[in-house]
Amino acid sequence: MIYLDNAASTRVDEKVVDEMLPYFKEQFGNPSSIHKYGRLAFMAVQNARKRIALLINAEPKEILLTSGGTESNNTALHGIPHKKKGKHVITSSIEHDAILEPCKRLERDGFQITYLPVDKEGLVNPEDVKRAISSDTCLISIMLANNEVGTIQPIKEICRIAHEKNVPMHTDAIQAAGKIPIDVKDLGVDLLSISSHKINGPKGVGALFIKTGTELDPLMLGGGQENGLRSGTENVPNIVGFGKACQLANDNMKQNENHFRTLSTKLSSRILQEITHVTFNGHPEKRIPNNTHFTFLGTNGEDLIIKLDENDIAASTGSACSVKTQKASHVLKAMGFSHEQIAGSLRLTIGISNTEKEIDDTVEILKKIINELRAVSPYKEKYNF
Amino acid sequence: MIYLDNAASTRVDEKVVDEMLPYFKEQFGNPSSIHKYGRLAFMAVQNARKRIALLINAEPKEILLTSGGTESNNTALHGIPHKKKGKHVITSSIEHDAILEPCKRLERDGFQITYLPVDKEGLVNPEDVKRAISSDTCLISIMLANNEVGTIQPIKEICRIAHEKNVPMHTDAIQAAGKIPIDVKDLGVDLLSISSHKINGPKGVGALFIKTGTELDPLMLGGGQENGLRSGTENVPNIVGFGKACQLANDNMKQNENHFRTLSTKLSSRILQEITHVTFNGHPEKRIPNNTHFTFLGTNGEDLIIKLDENDIAASTGSACSVKTQKASHVLKAMGFSHEQIAGSLRLTIGISNTEKEIDDTVEILKKIINELRAVSPYKEKYNF
Repeated sequence: MIYLDNAASTRVDEKVVDEMLPYFKEQFGNPSSIHKYGRLAFMAVQNARKRIALLINAEPKEILLTSGGTESNNTALHGIPHKKKGKHVITSSIEHDAILEPCKRLERDGFQITYLPVDKEGLVNPEDVKRAISSDTCLISIMLANNEVGTIQPIKEICRIAHEKNVPMHTDAIQAAGKIPIDVKDLGVDLLSISSHKINGPKGVGALFIKTGTELDPLMLGGGQENGLRSGTENVPNIVGFGKACQLANDNMKQNENHFRTLSTKLSSRILQEITHVTFNGHPEKRIPNNTHFTFLGTNGEDLIIKLDENDIAASTGSACSVKTQKASHVLKAMGFSHEQIAGSLRLTIGISNTEKEIDDTVEILKKIINELRAVSPYKEKYNF
Repeated sequence: MIYLDNAASTRVDEKVVDEMLPYFKEQFGNPSSIHKYGRLAFMAVQNARKRIALLINAEPKEILLTSGGTESNNTALHGIPHKKKGKHVITSSIEHDAILEPCKRLERDGFQITYLPVDKEGLVNPEDVKRAISSDTCLISIMLANNEVGTIQPIKEICRIAHEKNVPMHTDAIQAAGKIPIDVKDLGVDLLSISSHKINGPKGVGALFIKTGTELDPLMLGGGQENGLRSGTENVPNIVGFGKACQLANDNMKQNENHFRTLSTKLSSRILQEITHVTFNGHPEKRIPNNTHFTFLGTNGEDLIIKLDENDIAASTGSACSVKTQKASHVLKAMGFSHEQIAGSLRLTIGISNTEKEIDDTVEILKKIINELRAVSPYKEKYNF
């Protein structure tokens, strides 16, 4: 099977699993316990926290451990608006649902939300951010890289604009982490979300970077873990695994970036050369290196992924989280895609263990499948397939 | 090392780890993906859900998967009051902080909370519940078994009273699950929280039973997983592990109960016979079989656990979650304990792998330690040690 859905989830690295294992059956203590089992578990968490901080150039004490990217985003989107003055939040129209849905709740709770538009390559215009800020704005949340089309936003510039008006800035870096170097100090962000299972770590764990001095209202209350900002017994083995995954991602950043770029360039250039009526979506340069996103006119993305699956290739039409709900991509809509273009879209995302041969095999199978689908397409005449 | 802090966390069963392993490196798909990797992950989650449901005699569709007991409790305490009419919540004064802290937030948000008293054995009086219910009551949350002293509350009776007034009932069964049989249909509860790592499953996963027809406002928003009630990529390996842990707990219930009871009875009877000025706390019969809780007059619980730790025994003064904050147990306070009695308290909680020899060794070490501590106790004269 060729796995090209690494934006949805990734294989856990062998070295990550090896580091996790002792924390199930041997060092299984509760980090809050003061006996030896507890102390060892606590130290393991603190060690992992350092490694996670290092991936994004944060201080360990600025890392809040969560149950995953969704919780990190929910924590930011609940925590800041419910702590700071102001009833206005700015976000973009192409955010993940883990941002958009909390925004909808804020609207229900009396907040006003500005959903900024994007251009046809998925870019937010920093000037739009500047215009949207009012004295009532309490938070700006704009993603670092889009989960469907991979476009990287000008976060550093947006952040500068936000801070000129003293508005805190959050960015969802879940798809960007491990794909491009991230430096929270250079970006200037106040909050940043990352997730373990997108970078070959285990599921069920993530982090929210919270710049020192940034106050927020906790989402999860109880025993007071994580300095009272996230209660609940720490998920020690998964945190340890996340720490190792961050270390590996950090150590192999250059090499992984090159690998992603080589394979995605090969994939996109072969597809664009060997298949007709296809577009490559998102920004041509400002994109994470492992993401490729295409529109094959006259096909249906659902049919494509089912046919690919029959041919042992795992792919996606867009966000895994919205595949089952079958709703049309809000990201592509915001980018101005027509219904037909949205329907014919396919996301192929490269992982660290994909090979050139897998890319070549994928192109061959894709050519065959697209021919088959276009032979029976309602658009057959229109495009003269 | 003798581990007698099984109320804080437990060793993950070998069989549980074995079932989890394939989901890290092989079946690592995102359950929302429609390709084979996704479908296999989805089926694994559904299979685990059935096993979890079986432990508490629920339907699989009534099981909401969460990141742990704290999230389960927060989901209930946020979800019901923010969905139902009414601004009054009834709870007890001996709940875990994962109930009490969300209650404090509800107070901040304009709700009125009644904290019911308990008697000296830690029991809530159902008549007090009846008297506290008003037309404004939207939720009653009372724990099934207490995490410090192990007292089991008359939930079935309280539930009957709640339902007479059409008030939904939640119970925190985190310490009771796997220790005594739980049947949500027999208890009659509308919501019930359980946690994996207290029953030899992995950390970072729990469940909230939600009786069919019970509506709640989700805590975590995003991709719409768990029927929109808990967004975020499912923590597949840990969910699989939790499912296995539930199956094992269910299959071995009788045998484990006997084991817990044999060891805890031996422990408490030897301690009560061989050490002076000691009380056994909580209810003598209405208690989970693995919990023992003592007060050794003229000693300090912190000193006790440090000395026990030096002698390779892991114990606790009470809730692991409040050990580090050093605050005096609100549970013992509510039970009418004096400052001196609270200070001298020790919790020893039995696990499935503890042995009779470990219990005997613990008693011998405890006798020695208590003699040492009492020899230098400020209460030496008072008790004529």
